[in-house]
Amino acid sequence: MDKIGVPCWVRVFSITYGRFPSIGCGYDQSVAAVVFGDASQQSRLYPLTKRRSEGAVPVAGNYRLIDAVISNCINSNITKVYALTQFNSTSLNSHLSRAYSGGLLANHEFLEVIAAYQSPEDANWFQGTADAMRRCLWVLEQHPAVEFLVLPGHHLYKMDYQKLLEAHRKNKADVTVSVLDSMTDCNTGFGRFNVGSGNRVIGFEKEPDLIPAMSLSVEGLQFNDSFNERFSSMGIYVMNRHVMIKLLTESFPKANDLKNEVIPGAISLGLKVHAYRFDGYWEDMRSIEAYYKVNMESTKKTNMKYNFHDRNFPLYTLPRHLPPSLITDAAITDSTIGDGCILNRCSIRSSVIGPRTRIGDGAVIEDTVIMGSDIYQSVPDQSIGVGEGSFIKKAIIDKNVKIGKNVKMINRDNVLEGNNETDGYIITSGIIVVLRGAVFPDETIL
Amino acid sequence: MDKIGVPCWVRVFSITYGRFPSIGCGYDQSVAAVVFGDASQQSRLYPLTKRRSEGAVPVAGNYRLIDAVISNCINSNITKVYALTQFNSTSLNSHLSRAYSGGLLANHEFLEVIAAYQSPEDANWFQGTADAMRRCLWVLEQHPAVEFLVLPGHHLYKMDYQKLLEAHRKNKADVTVSVLDSMTDCNTGFGRFNVGSGNRVIGFEKEPDLIPAMSLSVEGLQFNDSFNERFSSMGIYVMNRHVMIKLLTESFPKANDLKNEVIPGAISLGLKVHAYRFDGYWEDMRSIEAYYKVNMESTKKTNMKYNFHDRNFPLYTLPRHLPPSLITDAAITDSTIGDGCILNRCSIRSSVIGPRTRIGDGAVIEDTVIMGSDIYQSVPDQSIGVGEGSFIKKAIIDKNVKIGKNVKMINRDNVLEGNNETDGYIITSGIIVVLRGAVFPDETIL
Amino acid sequence: MDKIGVPCWVRVFSITYGRFPSIGCGYDQSVAAVVFGDASQQSRLYPLTKRRSEGAVPVAGNYRLIDAVISNCINSNITKVYALTQFNSTSLNSHLSRAYSGGLLANHEFLEVIAAYQSPEDANWFQGTADAMRRCLWVLEQHPAVEFLVLPGHHLYKMDYQKLLEAHRKNKADVTVSVLDSMTDCNTGFGRFNVGSGNRVIGFEKEPDLIPAMSLSVEGLQFNDSFNERFSSMGIYVMNRHVMIKLLTESFPKANDLKNEVIPGAISLGLKVHAYRFDGYWEDMRSIEAYYKVNMESTKKTNMKYNFHDRNFPLYTLPRHLPPSLITDAAITDSTIGDGCILNRCSIRSSVIGPRTRIGDGAVIEDTVIMGSDIYQSVPDQSIGVGEGSFIKKAIIDKNVKIGKNVKMINRDNVLEGNNETDGYIITSGIIVVLRGAVFPDETIL
Amino acid sequence: MDKIGVPCWVRVFSITYGRFPSIGCGYDQSVAAVVFGDASQQSRLYPLTKRRSEGAVPVAGNYRLIDAVISNCINSNITKVYALTQFNSTSLNSHLSRAYSGGLLANHEFLEVIAAYQSPEDANWFQGTADAMRRCLWVLEQHPAVEFLVLPGHHLYKMDYQKLLEAHRKNKADVTVSVLDSMTDCNTGFGRFNVGSGNRVIGFEKEPDLIPAMSLSVEGLQFNDSFNERFSSMGIYVMNRHVMIKLLTESFPKANDLKNEVIPGAISLGLKVHAYRFDGYWEDMRSIEAYYKVNMESTKKTNMKYNFHDRNFPLYTLPRHLPPSLITDAAITDSTIGDGCILNRCSIRSSVIGPRTRIGDGAVIEDTVIMGSDIYQSVPDQSIGVGEGSFIKKAIIDKNVKIGKNVKMINRDNVLEGNNETDGYIITSGIIVVLRGAVFPDETIL
Repeated sequence: MDKIGVPCWVRVFSITYGRFPSIGCGYDQSVAAVVFGDASQQSRLYPLTKRRSEGAVPVAGNYRLIDAVISNCINSNITKVYALTQFNSTSLNSHLSRAYSGGLLANHEFLEVIAAYQSPEDANWFQGTADAMRRCLWVLEQHPAVEFLVLPGHHLYKMDYQKLLEAHRKNKADVTVSVLDSMTDCNTGFGRFNVGSGNRVIGFEKEPDLIPAMSLSVEGLQFNDSFNERFSSMGIYVMNRHVMIKLLTESFPKANDLKNEVIPGAISLGLKVHAYRFDGYWEDMRSIEAYYKVNMESTKKTNMKYNFHDRNFPLYTLPRHLPPSLITDAAITDSTIGDGCILNRCSIRSSVIGPRTRIGDGAVIEDTVIMGSDIYQSVPDQSIGVGEGSFIKKAIIDKNVKIGKNVKMINRDNVLEGNNETDGYIITSGIIVVLRGAVFPDETIL
Repeated sequence: MDKIGVPCWVRVFSITYGRFPSIGCGYDQSVAAVVFGDASQQSRLYPLTKRRSEGAVPVAGNYRLIDAVISNCINSNITKVYALTQFNSTSLNSHLSRAYSGGLLANHEFLEVIAAYQSPEDANWFQGTADAMRRCLWVLEQHPAVEFLVLPGHHLYKMDYQKLLEAHRKNKADVTVSVLDSMTDCNTGFGRFNVGSGNRVIGFEKEPDLIPAMSLSVEGLQFNDSFNERFSSMGIYVMNRHVMIKLLTESFPKANDLKNEVIPGAISLGLKVHAYRFDGYWEDMRSIEAYYKVNMESTKKTNMKYNFHDRNFPLYTLPRHLPPSLITDAAITDSTIGDGCILNRCSIRSSVIGPRTRIGDGAVIEDTVIMGSDIYQSVPDQSIGVGEGSFIKKAIIDKNVKIGKNVKMINRDNVLEGNNETDGYIITSGIIVVLRGAVFPDETIL
Repeated sequence: MDKIGVPCWVRVFSITYGRFPSIGCGYDQSVAAVVFGDASQQSRLYPLTKRRSEGAVPVAGNYRLIDAVISNCINSNITKVYALTQFNSTSLNSHLSRAYSGGLLANHEFLEVIAAYQSPEDANWFQGTADAMRRCLWVLEQHPAVEFLVLPGHHLYKMDYQKLLEAHRKNKADVTVSVLDSMTDCNTGFGRFNVGSGNRVIGFEKEPDLIPAMSLSVEGLQFNDSFNERFSSMGIYVMNRHVMIKLLTESFPKANDLKNEVIPGAISLGLKVHAYRFDGYWEDMRSIEAYYKVNMESTKKTNMKYNFHDRNFPLYTLPRHLPPSLITDAAITDSTIGDGCILNRCSIRSSVIGPRTRIGDGAVIEDTVIMGSDIYQSVPDQSIGVGEGSFIKKAIIDKNVKIGKNVKMINRDNVLEGNNETDGYIITSGIIVVLRGAVFPDETIL
Repeated sequence: MDKIGVPCWVRVFSITYGRFPSIGCGYDQSVAAVVFGDASQQSRLYPLTKRRSEGAVPVAGNYRLIDAVISNCINSNITKVYALTQFNSTSLNSHLSRAYSGGLLANHEFLEVIAAYQSPEDANWFQGTADAMRRCLWVLEQHPAVEFLVLPGHHLYKMDYQKLLEAHRKNKADVTVSVLDSMTDCNTGFGRFNVGSGNRVIGFEKEPDLIPAMSLSVEGLQFNDSFNERFSSMGIYVMNRHVMIKLLTESFPKANDLKNEVIPGAISLGLKVHAYRFDGYWEDMRSIEAYYKVNMESTKKTNMKYNFHDRNFPLYTLPRHLPPSLITDAAITDSTIGDGCILNRCSIRSSVIGPRTRIGDGAVIEDTVIMGSDIYQSVPDQSIGVGEGSFIKKAIIDKNVKIGKNVKMINRDNVLEGNNETDGYIITSGIIVVLRGAVFPDETIL
């Protein structure tokens, strides 16, 4: 083993570092989660991410994307979550603080948002996931967690992380990576792992070009190659406390990135890296089209891939204080209607209507996601919402948009891709995406 | 003055007892409110009050009646409220605790629910409003309030209590009563006051039979009778701290009732009792019919007598964590739709649909209040809600009611008043009122 | 089997009624706890219970007795608790609402206080534990719990209720009772169980006179008597949902009491009643002396029987917003000091000093529990607290007591038991117990 | 007037833009506060600000500096606060979110933390106060506030901002600046204003070199120079909504700084800038020495310049869930003791002992601020706190410091200024300042 440079501390640690005494109940203090609220500056959900990070994108009317991962944590009894944010983080931070910082959980300081910050030591932004964690180590280290669970914050799935942690502990692994069991050809953006017997990870390939990133064969360990399989990474990593600290500060002190630098590095060093196969529904919302489909799914009554209404695995979010929706005269089909809407003489088909949406007389909404409004308006004629007689089909309308009377948003020219950002919208995969706060005068046609 | 028996302590107190030093901002520590959550055992809203007190009756989809008065307190910057409850108090207490006990307001212990209790000194229930306050005096006295504001908890109105308090202080009154300015012939159940010049109260008449209850002329004070007017009491009283304590413990230690005993007694004793005239909308919901009308009002878009959506005088209630309403195919007219409803192929006209309501295919709901469901159900065929093909017209459906398929609730025989409580409903003023949790099998017709 | 009268429904239910689908994580919806906040009207902690129920008695400076049981529930992942109260319930209800009703837990409505109430059906107070549960059944039934866990609210112990529930499920029991394993001769007030092989309960004896209450031998079941043992009941019962409902409404619809009527009745009917042996520390505070000892224990640094500072099994309570304690000049030995105290030139030995206590110059406090003050005072000379030069030894000082200057509370005459309630104190087991709000003028000696 | 270049929009606006309709009670929606959590990168409180911004520096045991300003807002009925942070913001954000984001105030979104963030439009950090506000304008504009109140977050004072706002409105000012009335020679770092008759501001001088920064005489307005006075700015500005937007986006779109660019610019443009004279206690903590003095002040019983315990103007902070302090044997003089401390056989004189501090046998603490510990420790021998026999005099001990046995921190050599940061401390004005988390082995002497 010495030949391949496995550092001593890893082996010793794996054996001797025990878990905290626990009485097998209550809050699991041995694990802390680190959630990345941002994907990156180049979000594939642009322009929905023009003013917010991916985790803060509203979905299915009442929720934000990050609620799925935070709810997984709550439902998995993980009671300490650090959310690291930097890119367009204002609305994400506001949502997280208001939804998850109060009450009895404050006792445990359940969720702590760590926004990128300047310090005398480092005046830069976070340079990547590994850099972000390294710069927050002084905070993370305060928690007595034995394992850290790293989670992307903008994926949609339900996972009991305790099962992942059980596998990690049973394998006495240094690092456990979660992989997609059933979707082996999926490009998740997090690379692929070669997995040998006993789910030991023996190699890594970078996405998207799938060129092997480094020599991954761990010498001295005899794997039966015929059992090896490739699995797509979900970007979810369990790392033992001291493993994480050593990797970030000693082994790879200059690495900016977890997925392409630190985790592959850990494999190369011969650490015990294991794979945990997840075979449930997983959606990473890597395109406007995927985001659109998930919203359309949420209006279905049955056979939802992701059940937003599951009482045994609830989806948490910010509680609201809105009045009920007031509907003057509407024909509504296969749609969800958020709180506090005012729907006049209109027709709504296969659409998600978010909180506080106003729709005028004679308007028709089809196959559309309307995110709604953040604010109440005192002057009715500046109206946020959809004006009288307007027709909207296959669109995503971001928040606080003002659509005048007799507007037609129908993608008249059947454009597949088009950038009209200065006019307040883009078209992608044939879907009209209207920017937050855009204004469309009466009679506009697009 | 001695002739007419004005007790010395009153005069001394009125002059010398100052207000707490205040910097004119922030929370008003000089006032505490006492809200009566119950009307009485003989509620006129029965059977809606079979399992809950009047203050806990749901209204306008998302609210409870008591939210109106508590919101008045919050909007009037009164930050200490005692809610006294006894009759069917479970759901009221639960609502109040969850909606108003948490957060930063906990610092001020904003709202304290005092349920009737047994003690070594007194094993009885509260025998009336005066008895309730007397038995809670040991709690009330702990607050340094200089004035106590007594409020019935089940009325619907918007009042800035600070204006009432200003009048009280300006008049240097011992007691100030709030009266209806514009509805002089209204029988509020709280009696009527004869009001002389300077809004000084000089007499009281009992309701409902309007026979003068006692000799009310205060000798020695020369009022110009020609200016006297009669005003209906709203049951709202401001009492100076020591006045309240003396009245309850020394002057009238056996009185059970404020409205017919203690307040008239204060007038007789010659205390400075003043009237504050309120001319806004006020509704005491003294009948099922009045309750029904208020709900129907709430589905209107404009010209509401009581605006449930007023952002300058918000109506507070319990925040909710429900998913948006899922509507398969509905035609909805002049209605409000609460959160978390599942509405299938149905038609809804002029109705209030409360949270978590399920309505089946082909159902028609007209001129109806459905309160919704408290709970989620795991077994769909036990379904709470309205079954397929059912038709409901002019009804009030309490919570957790199960209505089967092809049920007709149409008051077929045009009954005006009918008691079918064992069958799960009564009819009053032609309105069908269905009891909480009632079950109606398929094909039922009523 | 019919011979021995086991009702059919029990057997069927035990077999067929499954648990809710659970993913093995998060909140355990299959159990709800029912906590009795009151012991009874004849509290052995009188006069500490003159104005509050036993569960609301302050202990160890910052806590209330009921916090121990509620914290057990939280630490055991039980997220639905009903607290039934009736006797002197005001401060208990206030504490529970403010400490446990807010925040994210509100989503689950973690804790619901059910104060005794009048209804059209029953105008009486609760007549006992069984009557209380029967009258609240309409509330309890709303929760989908499969098992109900009944808990006295004023005992001090740490138990992982999940282990009790596991034993219950493993035994496929109808009812499981928790018993003291190591203290077999202890009179707990809840009676004793005869326990046969497999921890099956085969008999019950009443406390305190220990006369067998009924024929307890279950015919047809052949237990090996030589293995039978007697264990004291802790008053903790797990009951399957339908078993509980049938026992309260069908088998024993008139029973008022769980411990002497319903539970023994269940044994007599031949239901599967099992014992769960608990061998940890348990203290039921059945006397002022026991209460006093627990408080004295809490000032020890090590070897506490009940660890109030255990971070792996935290004790929850109301969060506080008090300033730090201000100490002018004090010699403090083996004592705990609560928040917001003002301690002048004084000496404190082996004492518990509760929140907001003021102690004057030259005062000496020894072997004493001072509960502190609920309120701030604006006028310093009405001072709540201990005046200058006073000497207090072996006393329990309830809240808001005013002790003047040079008072000596030393039990001068070595009284063992004495009732001076009108003078503001009693003496029991040689301990001076001062009543809430009592006033002792300067120079008083007792 | 045109001569002097007053832009038209200002005048029109001053006249026509009304306030929101208000019923004179409840929350004041017409004002929003903008609090700067950071002073700047070059904090004068270094090294206390090595890991936190100035607003997050603990003070007086239980508080953070920013609590003073946030409490001013609450006590002034301002219910919308934006806190802008960037520099070492982690612990500030965590404190603000947990203390002020939950409960009923969440309804109003009372406090919103806006951490510096990257966006597609601007990848830079905030370049100054004006730049920060400009980049957050899209958030600020969502609030219907008519006036914005800009506040530094790290000053210690009590001000009723409503009085400042009243003066602003009465003067019909465009901008109102708050100035120190009584401390005219004080260098606040925010410059000085020349104030003419009617409190109209007619000039500005930069700090610290006090060279007139620009031509400040406003031509065409005839002030009587003999009445002019110079007042130091407190960095507090009220700006009308449209004035603020125009100044930041049109008049001075490149300005980074409010105090030296935008506000003086507004004066130059001839806008109506008025001064509000504040004559209360104000402390800007511009040095370690000032910080030290304020803490020493907080241990006084009377005549405090800033009363941390004022119940009529309460100081809010994060509620805590700590056990009472356990004191084995301590002589304590003129000190404050936080919650959850463990004080063994020690002597404490004139010191602030923060939450969770442990002090060992024989230790002596004099004239010292110990901030305490953020975390509980499971392994006692790694002990955070002060070891046995150690002697500390005139020091500020940041959080989580480990001081071994028989350590002497006495500034043996009477150093006035010394930088031993690598050894875990610096000395400034003769005060030893120990860095967060520093470790001092047994027998260390400094």
